[in-house]
Amino acid sequence: MDTTMHDSSGPAQRQVVATCSPLAQEQLALRPLAVTDVRLTGGPWARWQQANRAATIPHGLHWLEKDGVIDNFRRLWGESDAPRKGWVFCDSDLYKTLEAIGWDLAHGAHAPWDEAVTDAVGLLTKTQEGDGYLNTFVQAGLAGRWADLPRGHELYVGGHLIQAGIAHARVTGDERLLDIGRAFADLLVTEFGRDGRLTGTDGHPEIETALVELYRYTGVRAYLDLAEHLLDVRGHGLLGNGLFGPAYFQDDVPVRSRTEIVGHSVRALYLLAGVVDVYLETGEAALLEAAEAQWRSMVAGKTYLTGAVGSRFEGEAFGDAYELPPDLVYGETCAAIASVMVSWRLLLATGDGKYADLIERILHNAFAASTSADRTAFFYVNPMQRRKARPAPARGTKPLRTDAPGTRADWFDVACCPPNIMRTVASLTGYVATVDDGGVQLHQYLPATVAWDAGAVVRVQTEYPRTGTVTVVVDEAPGGSWALSLRVPSWARGGATVTVAGGETTAAAPDARGYHVVTRDWAAGDTVVLELPVEPRLTVPHPGVDAVRGCVAIERGPVVYCLEKPADAAAALPGELVDLTTVAIDPGSELVVVPAPQLGEDVLSIQVDGVEGADPAWDGAGWATLDEAPGPAGRPVTLTAIPYAVWANRGPSELRVWVPLAF
Amino acid sequence: MDTTMHDSSGPAQRQVVATCSPLAQEQLALRPLAVTDVRLTGGPWARWQQANRAATIPHGLHWLEKDGVIDNFRRLWGESDAPRKGWVFCDSDLYKTLEAIGWDLAHGAHAPWDEAVTDAVGLLTKTQEGDGYLNTFVQAGLAGRWADLPRGHELYVGGHLIQAGIAHARVTGDERLLDIGRAFADLLVTEFGRDGRLTGTDGHPEIETALVELYRYTGVRAYLDLAEHLLDVRGHGLLGNGLFGPAYFQDDVPVRSRTEIVGHSVRALYLLAGVVDVYLETGEAALLEAAEAQWRSMVAGKTYLTGAVGSRFEGEAFGDAYELPPDLVYGETCAAIASVMVSWRLLLATGDGKYADLIERILHNAFAASTSADRTAFFYVNPMQRRKARPAPARGTKPLRTDAPGTRADWFDVACCPPNIMRTVASLTGYVATVDDGGVQLHQYLPATVAWDAGAVVRVQTEYPRTGTVTVVVDEAPGGSWALSLRVPSWARGGATVTVAGGETTAAAPDARGYHVVTRDWAAGDTVVLELPVEPRLTVPHPGVDAVRGCVAIERGPVVYCLEKPADAAAALPGELVDLTTVAIDPGSELVVVPAPQLGEDVLSIQVDGVEGADPAWDGAGWATLDEAPGPAGRPVTLTAIPYAVWANRGPSELRVWVPLAF
Repeated sequence: MDTTMHDSSGPAQRQVVATCSPLAQEQLALRPLAVTDVRLTGGPWARWQQANRAATIPHGLHWLEKDGVIDNFRRLWGESDAPRKGWVFCDSDLYKTLEAIGWDLAHGAHAPWDEAVTDAVGLLTKTQEGDGYLNTFVQAGLAGRWADLPRGHELYVGGHLIQAGIAHARVTGDERLLDIGRAFADLLVTEFGRDGRLTGTDGHPEIETALVELYRYTGVRAYLDLAEHLLDVRGHGLLGNGLFGPAYFQDDVPVRSRTEIVGHSVRALYLLAGVVDVYLETGEAALLEAAEAQWRSMVAGKTYLTGAVGSRFEGEAFGDAYELPPDLVYGETCAAIASVMVSWRLLLATGDGKYADLIERILHNAFAASTSADRTAFFYVNPMQRRKARPAPARGTKPLRTDAPGTRADWFDVACCPPNIMRTVASLTGYVATVDDGGVQLHQYLPATVAWDAGAVVRVQTEYPRTGTVTVVVDEAPGGSWALSLRVPSWARGGATVTVAGGETTAAAPDARGYHVVTRDWAAGDTVVLELPVEPRLTVPHPGVDAVRGCVAIERGPVVYCLEKPADAAAALPGELVDLTTVAIDPGSELVVVPAPQLGEDVLSIQVDGVEGADPAWDGAGWATLDEAPGPAGRPVTLTAIPYAVWANRGPSELRVWVPLAF
Repeated sequence: MDTTMHDSSGPAQRQVVATCSPLAQEQLALRPLAVTDVRLTGGPWARWQQANRAATIPHGLHWLEKDGVIDNFRRLWGESDAPRKGWVFCDSDLYKTLEAIGWDLAHGAHAPWDEAVTDAVGLLTKTQEGDGYLNTFVQAGLAGRWADLPRGHELYVGGHLIQAGIAHARVTGDERLLDIGRAFADLLVTEFGRDGRLTGTDGHPEIETALVELYRYTGVRAYLDLAEHLLDVRGHGLLGNGLFGPAYFQDDVPVRSRTEIVGHSVRALYLLAGVVDVYLETGEAALLEAAEAQWRSMVAGKTYLTGAVGSRFEGEAFGDAYELPPDLVYGETCAAIASVMVSWRLLLATGDGKYADLIERILHNAFAASTSADRTAFFYVNPMQRRKARPAPARGTKPLRTDAPGTRADWFDVACCPPNIMRTVASLTGYVATVDDGGVQLHQYLPATVAWDAGAVVRVQTEYPRTGTVTVVVDEAPGGSWALSLRVPSWARGGATVTVAGGETTAAAPDARGYHVVTRDWAAGDTVVLELPVEPRLTVPHPGVDAVRGCVAIERGPVVYCLEKPADAAAALPGELVDLTTVAIDPGSELVVVPAPQLGEDVLSIQVDGVEGADPAWDGAGWATLDEAPGPAGRPVTLTAIPYAVWANRGPSELRVWVPLAF
């Protein structure tokens, strides 16, 4: 065992209360702020954080009991005689919920959470074996320890335990959970390290990023070394073929050689988060290059307009480039979250706003759509087209993960997504801003205050994305010049303006990284107004995306719109009851913004001219000769589009994001 | 037990040696001919039948041994100590192979088949229990008898046993296999009949059509009654939810009320074959109406241009209408075969040539593409677009069913398709022609002789579809007037001509059913020449099929073409090494037919003008604002298209059937 392992028992230097808090600073283009340095002061994300505490996390704790996840622990020491239930990885449902509670405590104390954590610590302490091992599936005798690394998820589950411990330790200083996770990590170092007796790794990445975070918290190099070692061994076919071949678990190509993102989307992206994490600590350029190349391949041809990734049901996987069907999309919620995790790390590493652009796209669309208006029901699979309304799941039931229901479900048989959503919502604040030696960078626009080391505080006032106006007020400004960097989203280039301290309004001039930088000797009370052009626009897909050729999508600011046709006609807005099979949009139409408070606070709909209806000559025919094909036909109609994020809140419905252009 | 059950031990009257031989005649618009009444005299289908005997069936028998399917029987009475292997339904792999052998014997005696059948009869006789029960999975103790009807496949497997017995009994009169199947059927009548103690049915239809055929052979009404009863009970939710809900096994809606084809595609179509079979014997109009409505829904919006059906990997299922992605298509080979079975029965019931049109489309494309040039490797999943070449499976290995490899595989872990192909090829002859009281109808054009009751014999001479000329020579003509009906495929309407007995050539005048009918007092030596316009043409999809909007496919006669780009550049034809992601076809291009003997006897390629390459402004971008989107770009190129049926014969490759139109 590495003799340095227990040199440090407390936080290492430079510890920041964030979900990714690099210890080394050399590789950081931007430095994360603590979730406590940023305070949301209102708006939809603040409301979601409040609902996360009030509704979502309690709902999750209820399901952990109902589903037997807690009893799986109790039965191991005789407190429950319930049979072991759930998948091999279901301990992680508890751990991710505990992580969510940890980040949530950053927003203020909450007595029920103290009780929940104490209960969990008791549960885990009683269950953990003397050498640190902890896994209810294996401890129930259903599998041998480390006996099925490709499928057993033992390191994956342990990674989530470690991340839960780190959240609590960083936010409150309570290291009780961390001690449990750390004992497991120490066992991993012994068993799986370079001198360990085991040569494999887990079929599902996750441990890598967790170990790097543990290194960051403790300063114990052995955790980083193990993370690096687990990257090294991957990609050499040591996991076998499984059901879907070695690319499924990224075991076909070494991580440093891979340039295209492939395989199971959550595995691919959790691994990539670990790759960037190791780069951030070691500075090994090959890791960053591989991660950036994979990210580029993802955005160029494997990301949906909503930010969702992973088109294939088969293997929950990335498809080939441009394989982006809107109807058969899997688009797992966890994959969208994992994509945020990767982009955040790359943003810190490079400072390039394209990573914050993707985070914005995901958060406002794929991620926002994953959860119901009351924040207690969820999508696992996130379609962008539904030709036929599907039944809603009954409340209190849990569909299979792949059985995509008509509306959001309370829970899932594979329940990875709901607690992943909880921990992401609780830690969202961390993605808002960063600092560097020159000043502060604002990446996501929400009503918030941002404070940082230098003693400066800025306050962001905005209704974005309902409006495009973002006002930044300098509340506290220590002496000297520093830079305020405002991200100009790629969709806003050419149309954004900036007004500094009441001066002249000028076109925003984003730098090569996509930020408009204002450098000056700030005084308290100074304001900068960024005006983003949130007029609705029509977007076309890359011509390689065959599944939506000839179509447009409506976007407004960062918000992707959709046409939804509720099966319950009484719930429809005017302009929603059209035939979505034959509908088409007039490319010359005005796009008219109309408030739609029926769909939620701040929701804006968009009206657009189009046609619906096909030539009856097509009836019964699947195809026709080019020369004899019936021509375009359709009745003029005014269509109403709504934000994708709020679809499926009115019962079963038909849906489409991409709509053909009428010619 | 029905007291009529053993009234008859031999064939009922009107028995015809065909795969569907209705006993009642009232419902038959057309009557099937015996497979021995039609003799293929050459051409690609005759060669395939020869290869089926010489290569495919021996290959199948080898795999049945290698895979343990035979040992599963032997071990039950101690002749093997191999562990039970394979899926619950793998006995049916043997039964379908035996059925293939039965139909193959119609083409001539073959000593190895006699031996194979005697061996199988010995195997099954030793295994069958005293009350007729036979199922190696249950008899191995791995499940209780009838304990898991939704998933157990016991009646499904028994249905294939019965069909194998019928094939042998009809072709050779050998009733040994039939006796085994009949004993199982008698047990079913006792257990599952209206007075039986069991109220369920099998999750996988198949027993229905088998029981009707058994009724036809034996004349024993109890089998027909049971088939009808099993139709009656289905659709009332008695199979539970399973993994995919009751629609998966057509248990959501009663068969007579269903108008849209849904769920697992093979289950849906095997059931539909049973529905039409019961109609053909009972004349219950509601059954025919439901079947025709479902067929229409299938062809209008759920059938690929190749004739493949079942777009979804998830549940191997039909998608919603117009959900026809070319890349993520499942398109199981068994589903294409099942679609032929249904269309054949509807053709007999109605005489409408649209059913023979679909059979032609399937046989020349989806079905033909399922098997390698040497006839010993197979596709289970049949893509119509592949953006990235996938590795070929190693010879001697068997992929999972859903793990679609780059080229055809020797066998599959779920091995339903290969023996289904074998039995279909062996019985293909039955789909060529029918008769009615007025004369003969030719549905599929191959070099063949057709003889029927009336003592007439016609001889078809043709190289179709290599050429469009079909010459029918009357070899024997008893006195009196009779009608020769020639199907004019829907793609040929307007362009076909007919020349009767050396007279004037006139435009073909198909009747409402799609047949050009020549009625006269025929003399031996009379000829009719049908000239079908097989010039290549461009085909467009229904505008509801989003996944291929703006694309065309190349067709020539009944043959669907594709662009294939072999990974091995040396194997490519001129005009195949283009970028299939950005390729587009010039809608005004000439379509030039060029022989391609490298790809097989009689293969014709088609050259077409197009472009390849995208505007570099798209690099790295997944989408763009409509106003700012890069325009079309591309270098002129001459493309070479090949028949879809012969793709993947040159190692791994990229593929596309639907190609964007260049504007």
